[in-house]
Amino acid sequence: MGEIICNKFITLKHDIEGAPKEEDFEVITTNISISSIVKQGSNIVLVKCLDVSIDPYQVNRMKSYSPSQNSIIPASKLVHGEEIDGNGIGKVVVSGHPEFRKDDLVTGRLSWAQYVVVEDVKLLRKLYAMGFPLSYHLGILGVSGLTAYAGLFKLGKPKKGERIFVSTASGSVGNLVGQYAKLFGCYVIGCAGTTDKVALLKEKLGFDDAFNYKEESDLKVALQRYFPEGIDIYFDNVGGEMLEAAVANMNTYGRVIICGVISEYTDPKRRAAPDMINVIYKRITIQGFLVSDYKDEDNFTEFVSTTSKYLNAGQIQVLEDISIGVESIPSAFVGLFCGRNVGKTIVKIADD
Amino acid sequence: MGEIICNKFITLKHDIEGAPKEEDFEVITTNISISSIVKQGSNIVLVKCLDVSIDPYQVNRMKSYSPSQNSIIPASKLVHGEEIDGNGIGKVVVSGHPEFRKDDLVTGRLSWAQYVVVEDVKLLRKLYAMGFPLSYHLGILGVSGLTAYAGLFKLGKPKKGERIFVSTASGSVGNLVGQYAKLFGCYVIGCAGTTDKVALLKEKLGFDDAFNYKEESDLKVALQRYFPEGIDIYFDNVGGEMLEAAVANMNTYGRVIICGVISEYTDPKRRAAPDMINVIYKRITIQGFLVSDYKDEDNFTEFVSTTSKYLNAGQIQVLEDISIGVESIPSAFVGLFCGRNVGKTIVKIADD
Repeated sequence: MGEIICNKFITLKHDIEGAPKEEDFEVITTNISISSIVKQGSNIVLVKCLDVSIDPYQVNRMKSYSPSQNSIIPASKLVHGEEIDGNGIGKVVVSGHPEFRKDDLVTGRLSWAQYVVVEDVKLLRKLYAMGFPLSYHLGILGVSGLTAYAGLFKLGKPKKGERIFVSTASGSVGNLVGQYAKLFGCYVIGCAGTTDKVALLKEKLGFDDAFNYKEESDLKVALQRYFPEGIDIYFDNVGGEMLEAAVANMNTYGRVIICGVISEYTDPKRRAAPDMINVIYKRITIQGFLVSDYKDEDNFTEFVSTTSKYLNAGQIQVLEDISIGVESIPSAFVGLFCGRNVGKTIVKIADD
Repeated sequence: MGEIICNKFITLKHDIEGAPKEEDFEVITTNISISSIVKQGSNIVLVKCLDVSIDPYQVNRMKSYSPSQNSIIPASKLVHGEEIDGNGIGKVVVSGHPEFRKDDLVTGRLSWAQYVVVEDVKLLRKLYAMGFPLSYHLGILGVSGLTAYAGLFKLGKPKKGERIFVSTASGSVGNLVGQYAKLFGCYVIGCAGTTDKVALLKEKLGFDDAFNYKEESDLKVALQRYFPEGIDIYFDNVGGEMLEAAVANMNTYGRVIICGVISEYTDPKRRAAPDMINVIYKRITIQGFLVSDYKDEDNFTEFVSTTSKYLNAGQIQVLEDISIGVESIPSAFVGLFCGRNVGKTIVKIADD
């Protein structure tokens, strides 16, 4: 087994300023020697990447500085020339760890690459596909789904009939927040950035209403029109002016769940500026969260069982935006910041 | 009893723009005829004001518009030429309501006036002084104390040893937040706007440290210096740049309690702009609150029994800033916005 595997991976050429461009990335080809991995007791696992998740938060790791880089490990700064770790699904090629065997399906921290050498197997877990397509386990049954589920139900604590506003509602998390909230019995309006996305929200995903924020000259006035009775829960994926406008339209005891602030990831000048007088008088709670706090078995089991039931009953739609091949990763990533994606952005690196 | 009582009250001359000035107010003298009040079944109570509470939030009622004016009744817009209702302590002069008798001490919504005709007695309750000076029941044993107590313990949920930052720490609420937190076993730092106030916090009130924010050119850097291990709870009375700086220095799972945003009351351009990327990655909760949500008997009893125990044991200091006479109200109010007050601002209208 002195085999050599040729691996292509994506890396950063330099720190990113503003929105990412394809030219900020390059593809590097290296050789991985299997002999050191395969040894019993090496505890190293070589994984072939099948599907990798492409997520906006990664841009914060690519900047010279972001407050997020002081946070937990998957938020640490990325280094030029090195691999870009990210959530993915793969198949074990060779394993020096007793818990994993050749051909096991795994999910966890993989890489924007064809192959990844995993030295810390705590970042992997075996994947049981439960009859669903593998890609579902990155989106609707994976981190995106859990983010939507936990953010809405554990933080937002909706009551039936409450009025919910979701931004980037056709995105990987937003579309599921809206669908969960509808299935739970809430009134849901989403916003998105194209006419097609708005139509999708209303016609395919069953949102009560939706609008194109780019067609609104005054977001506060728009939200007042869409929510004459006020907003009970705002699930925020964008920050900035939309956050400000939503807070101005919240009801008493309203809850704002800050899941992402994509408008601020690439424009440090634009800053969410909710009116704190509203926050006081309406007793609003603004809460930031990371899905990593909800990955324990209890929460994960509840989420997967609810969601797979909805899937099997055909009650929830799956939106995936899949590109093919490791070379397409930069384009897929850049697309997140100009609104090209619909639903969960995934790059399929290999079929099996 | 055809008696006429001569009454002086304070009113607004016009809507206030920016910080209030003494010239924005005037004293009006009117006559109150007792005959219609004294009739059994009138349900009206005439109260002589003894002490009135002077509070910054009132300025929001004096502006052409503030989001707070859409909120609950004591926040409604004030009308020129009419009385300015506010929290106070008084003594019943005559009563047409069976629950109140002449000479009863009462507290509740009185007025910036010598006398007030109370038509809705639900806004009054009888006051039992419990051996403490009457003014305490506006400050440390009244709304200011309950605000500090409920904000810190019910929203902030401190743990012993946690690190707490309080802004306007020598103000009516801030000084008590700091003292409660110290007595509970937290590490507490406050900021204020003069050297004397800083000395008071450290030397008289037992804060672990304190600083003059006006001497700091970069509030983020200052807080980093005072909290090298980060802030667990920020009790915010000012908003704006201090809120932004505090959020940048919060620890994971930090809690920000928005009690007031005095910097924004008088300067609509200055807007709290916490970095939402920090809010997400540190899972920070920012929560606005009004003390009116904590006036139920359970909360009030817990607060009063804890606080009176501290008072009787000499463990808590009482900071009051008392002016004399109804004519001094505008000056006392204006003083709140230029940092003149230390502790609870009260105007004593009459001794008894």
